[in-house]
Amino acid sequence: MEQVLSENNLVISIDAMGGDKSPKVVIEGLALAHKRNPDIRFLVYGDKPKVTAEIDKFPALKDVCQIFHTEEFVHNEDKPSHVIRNRETSMYKAVEAVKNGEAMAVVSAGNTGALMAISKLLLKTIQKIHRPAIISIMPHINGRYVMLDLGANTECDGINLAEFAIMGNIFAKYSLGIEQPRVALMNIGAEEMKGKGEIHVAAHIIKNTHLNLNFIGYIEPHEIPNDKADVVVADGFSGNIALKSVEGTSQLLMRLIKKSVKQSFLAKIGLPFMFGAMKKLKKTMDPRLYNGAMFVGLNGLSVKSHGGTDAFGFSIAVENAARLVRKDFVGSIRRELENIDLDELSQEACYEVY
Amino acid sequence: MEQVLSENNLVISIDAMGGDKSPKVVIEGLALAHKRNPDIRFLVYGDKPKVTAEIDKFPALKDVCQIFHTEEFVHNEDKPSHVIRNRETSMYKAVEAVKNGEAMAVVSAGNTGALMAISKLLLKTIQKIHRPAIISIMPHINGRYVMLDLGANTECDGINLAEFAIMGNIFAKYSLGIEQPRVALMNIGAEEMKGKGEIHVAAHIIKNTHLNLNFIGYIEPHEIPNDKADVVVADGFSGNIALKSVEGTSQLLMRLIKKSVKQSFLAKIGLPFMFGAMKKLKKTMDPRLYNGAMFVGLNGLSVKSHGGTDAFGFSIAVENAARLVRKDFVGSIRRELENIDLDELSQEACYEVY
Repeated sequence: MEQVLSENNLVISIDAMGGDKSPKVVIEGLALAHKRNPDIRFLVYGDKPKVTAEIDKFPALKDVCQIFHTEEFVHNEDKPSHVIRNRETSMYKAVEAVKNGEAMAVVSAGNTGALMAISKLLLKTIQKIHRPAIISIMPHINGRYVMLDLGANTECDGINLAEFAIMGNIFAKYSLGIEQPRVALMNIGAEEMKGKGEIHVAAHIIKNTHLNLNFIGYIEPHEIPNDKADVVVADGFSGNIALKSVEGTSQLLMRLIKKSVKQSFLAKIGLPFMFGAMKKLKKTMDPRLYNGAMFVGLNGLSVKSHGGTDAFGFSIAVENAARLVRKDFVGSIRRELENIDLDELSQEACYEVY
Repeated sequence: MEQVLSENNLVISIDAMGGDKSPKVVIEGLALAHKRNPDIRFLVYGDKPKVTAEIDKFPALKDVCQIFHTEEFVHNEDKPSHVIRNRETSMYKAVEAVKNGEAMAVVSAGNTGALMAISKLLLKTIQKIHRPAIISIMPHINGRYVMLDLGANTECDGINLAEFAIMGNIFAKYSLGIEQPRVALMNIGAEEMKGKGEIHVAAHIIKNTHLNLNFIGYIEPHEIPNDKADVVVADGFSGNIALKSVEGTSQLLMRLIKKSVKQSFLAKIGLPFMFGAMKKLKKTMDPRLYNGAMFVGLNGLSVKSHGGTDAFGFSIAVENAARLVRKDFVGSIRRELENIDLDELSQEACYEVY
């Protein structure tokens, strides 16, 4: 068990009690992640008897897990303001492990608002970053892009958006392996003066940061799937609207396809021929492949797995976290910001725009 | 020709020079609309020789058209501020016909910003309405809903959103034939305090208007396709983001389906069996069926047809306009607002929310 805390290991803390079928799905997810990443060690927080019973099913996993018993856990309907006052939950303890330097990242499939609140409280925002954001990987026609903020900040100013661009750029480099990610601000028109003032301010700041950021300007949502940008930056309200519109439309189309196939005798005959193609399509759009929304901008990585995902989906969230830890994502953001005074740049930009 | 101006006729003015293939597509669209609606008469503005040459192809249409020559027309790249100063364009003249009471609605497939600017300038906003909005019909799993604002107002306060709800409600009644449309405010959560302040204010105002508005609260974008609301109200920025995300995702999925079918030998064999089902799906999602975004809140109807649509799409936009004229849409909004003091309600609501 001592090896868990050895410095050479990549250690991730796990809230075993979050998500619809916890701790079963969580532990199965760890077993999958362990198979592909034997070097990761887990600090697992939750109801010890239940967690142990699940881990016992995977002897190999057992060796890389240290289980910490917690009596309590966060419920889906718990309010963030309430949750941050209870230090005895599995979620709180798991985040605390990152704060104490015992783990480098935390993964939870629990209540999003609660995880965000606890993570902000314990990990604190990186110096020079004003607001953390939620980022996720999404599919486009030829591959993947990242989008932020997906809902952490309902209202954002130009400086917030510029910081999201900086963090999204590093995230895309490490997560997608793109050397010079194309960074764009989401807007309702491509022309310079279209949309909101804060977006224009952000564009001004980004152009002047000399960060070697490959800034390509504004992008409209219907262009995003056409492989036009690798990082899409938005305020949390618009980003969330875009994300959920994509989700709703995908489901609508899939349901409409099923409906029209059902109503067509011929289509039912043709259906067996389509299985291979449909399987491939489903694989591209499989939400499990994009599981693991991350809170970026904090002194430590906090990853939210979808509450309804399965073991494979949870393992993807764990691997996303591991990938960023290996690249020292948090340290990279700090270094990137070392020589930049975003506040000053923001003042200049506001002067230009307004 | 005199019959064109007779009071018993439903008269619509047409900007014949807007859109990608004008005036050809526009006139072919009128011919289609005429076949299904022989009572509509058209005032057609544009290059007379060109327009006449097209109309001559449809002898029946000829009888219900009056052509007015204009030397100039609005280009796609023209700025609204520039366009409103030129009174000699086909678009300006067509809108002016509504202002002068010669027509009850105008349809143009030209530059959206220009049509909006000219329409606002000439038709003016309905008394008691603070901001006109862009509304359109969209598909959900079982039928159709309406959504506004789709981009006329980048920033909105609570009172604007409440007005959109009132106008959207009447629009859904007349356009979709729904007696008690379910009206919802688009938001990033279903809980009362989620999202932006102006949305909370709007909810307060709507609850207190005693309009017999069937207000169902907040709706998240992924729930919209599930037949949960008939009227979705949003600020113009978020509405436009949602609309374009839906558009982008539909296109992405269609392209991914084609891609995976292409790469599968079996799928190619099965493809002929699928034609019927795919045709049905295409018909449900056919953007031409939803053509005709309308500026609501003005003293007269102004309809923007998609610039790239074909004759069938243009005819749908014309029919949408005719349907609302027949129901006296503009008069209905005025009557609905007669006994309401939205400004006062807004002050009360702001006091409650902030």
